[in-house]
Amino acid sequence: MSGTELKPPLDGIRVIDLTRVLSGPFCSMLLGDMGAEVIKIESPGGDPVRGQGHHKNGFSWYFAGFNRNKKSVVLDLYSDEGRTDLARLLETADVLVENFRPGVLGRMGFPPERLEEINPRLVVASVNGFGSTGPYTDRPAFDFIAQAMSGFMSVNGPEGEPPLRAAQPVTDLVAGLYTAFGIVSALHGRNRDGVGQAVETSMVNGVLSMMAYLASEHFVTGENPQRTGNDHPLVAPYGLYNTADGQIAISPSNDQVLGRLLAEIGLPDLLSDPRFDSNDKRFARRDELHGILDAALASDTRENWILRLNRAGVPTGKIQTLKEVFADPQIQAQEMAIDVPHGDERGTVRMLGFPVKLSRTPCAARLPAPRLGEHTEEVLAALREGQVTGGR
Amino acid sequence: MSGTELKPPLDGIRVIDLTRVLSGPFCSMLLGDMGAEVIKIESPGGDPVRGQGHHKNGFSWYFAGFNRNKKSVVLDLYSDEGRTDLARLLETADVLVENFRPGVLGRMGFPPERLEEINPRLVVASVNGFGSTGPYTDRPAFDFIAQAMSGFMSVNGPEGEPPLRAAQPVTDLVAGLYTAFGIVSALHGRNRDGVGQAVETSMVNGVLSMMAYLASEHFVTGENPQRTGNDHPLVAPYGLYNTADGQIAISPSNDQVLGRLLAEIGLPDLLSDPRFDSNDKRFARRDELHGILDAALASDTRENWILRLNRAGVPTGKIQTLKEVFADPQIQAQEMAIDVPHGDERGTVRMLGFPVKLSRTPCAARLPAPRLGEHTEEVLAALREGQVTGGR
Repeated sequence: MSGTELKPPLDGIRVIDLTRVLSGPFCSMLLGDMGAEVIKIESPGGDPVRGQGHHKNGFSWYFAGFNRNKKSVVLDLYSDEGRTDLARLLETADVLVENFRPGVLGRMGFPPERLEEINPRLVVASVNGFGSTGPYTDRPAFDFIAQAMSGFMSVNGPEGEPPLRAAQPVTDLVAGLYTAFGIVSALHGRNRDGVGQAVETSMVNGVLSMMAYLASEHFVTGENPQRTGNDHPLVAPYGLYNTADGQIAISPSNDQVLGRLLAEIGLPDLLSDPRFDSNDKRFARRDELHGILDAALASDTRENWILRLNRAGVPTGKIQTLKEVFADPQIQAQEMAIDVPHGDERGTVRMLGFPVKLSRTPCAARLPAPRLGEHTEEVLAALREGQVTGGR
Repeated sequence: MSGTELKPPLDGIRVIDLTRVLSGPFCSMLLGDMGAEVIKIESPGGDPVRGQGHHKNGFSWYFAGFNRNKKSVVLDLYSDEGRTDLARLLETADVLVENFRPGVLGRMGFPPERLEEINPRLVVASVNGFGSTGPYTDRPAFDFIAQAMSGFMSVNGPEGEPPLRAAQPVTDLVAGLYTAFGIVSALHGRNRDGVGQAVETSMVNGVLSMMAYLASEHFVTGENPQRTGNDHPLVAPYGLYNTADGQIAISPSNDQVLGRLLAEIGLPDLLSDPRFDSNDKRFARRDELHGILDAALASDTRENWILRLNRAGVPTGKIQTLKEVFADPQIQAQEMAIDVPHGDERGTVRMLGFPVKLSRTPCAARLPAPRLGEHTEEVLAALREGQVTGGR
């Protein structure tokens, strides 16, 4: 079968998207990027992100970057008519995504029993702050708070300095990505068994699950991991080093790679020096070792060392600003910035590309971000005429 | 239909897992947690992580925490016999996951054409450092380097201080999670169209896609986002404040929430004070404002403020160490640490729980992490007898 005949993986899946701001819209965008029909239900005031971030031609590029591949339908869910329209849309849908606080959707007239009654095949996905059971379930959520409560901040920061948040809204995005994974998994099960189910991810749980070996080391030793800045907590050499014209990041992944590093920088005998012949000794003399490496690396430029060391199989790179990232030929080859024409006065908007590459049905910006209510008539008219496309 | 009769979403999916260390094993664990049969192919020396991290009863808890819900089959892929066994396993499989450098799998005898010949329904997933096209495709990958190259470090760190890596291996884990999402999406498409395809995520692309509004602001303004530590780059108040007995994190999400914060801490008139009646003014006088909030918050304890402010709808929390995280009743209610008996001298291993909650078919540790080669005979014997279970 020719690849050109194939439809995107989630083609035919209809997602009713009640989410706003960040975690939920990121999740539904991921589904839209994979080909799902995403119907973004907005209140008459619209997603608050429409008014956030810098605007160009009257349009928020922040909103554009999180809402491609979606249709916008305005419903007033405080009115009977709005709720009736939502119920009818859910009959035609495969997935509902919401990021209200737990319980809010039920109080709006859509508790789990009613959703099951409306459509037993529906996958009902929730992204929230802390999960829907436990003492904090009613608390308002925000990325900064989730970073603090989850332990993320406790290990982020320079050695000897206070805990630090990451500037990226990591807890929103990780939760959105987990939810998208959970939704597609639940769809896979539904395709086999015929019944939908609820899928939930919280911002705290999502980012906590990324503590990886920091968590397993904590469980086995009982100790809290420490903040170590750009140094590795256990391994030397590892970190940022000075070349003739700037810093490079080097992280030899094992002793064999370390040997290749030292050979390439002209210190082939260092590992047989009794001061440095084990990781424990190197770690204890980390500052001294750092000075020796800096002195050796002064003999060539940053770009040359990056080429030479990578060729020798040593993971090496440099710290890049976003300007440098998007000028980087690798990032360009990977099309990680894309230009999406919006077909009107909003013009062409640059946004992040697709991190998942599919060989036969690549992700694409099939639709630009919608104007508020752009698809209300089209979607509701189809409902009235019974032209439902989803619900399979 | 009763939920108890249902099988996990990915039940019946067979994953052949050639990955080692972190990004790939995290991806395949996520698939296993959703019910897939994951067959971890290890070289006779085993996944290097078996020897990493603190051991208890001779067993690495780091390995355990990334390899639950997997079977271990030892194959020597440098031998003809090993490669033949792999080819026969792939005939029975739905998914292949690998995290070699691009091209390595082909040089091992399994280029894309051969994989398609062996099993046209196979979803072939790759996790790598930089992607399989572009000038850096052959470079060795490591989390620290991907954090540096992707722009992540450029925005992580205190204001006025150098760029900083995060201690969590975020680039490995985000790439693994994206790959799992891509795999299940591709399976969904395959169930409809009958053909598999290649799925790829790189560590740099994955974490770059998490730059979110930092990227959209960069695209629209052309400026690089700055490091701002625990302060918000645009909004005040926001950050860490002192109470009678410790710090709290507060992040009012909009002016309405800010009003509730100020009312609760006894400063209801602050927003009508001409020094503070707009965000711009508050931001310009951020230090002065910080002092006023600290003084007001000195009247009660940290725990009380967290309860009071959350009740008032203001996102508020505290920075927790991992010890505090796992003692937190919310984290306990969410079962984010689980104890998995390993059925032998390795005893019971504590590990992270499941961030995606499914209502009908909850994720579970159906299998503990395998001993090296524990399932070699079972899996290869079934192959010989033609008892293949996958490949649907």
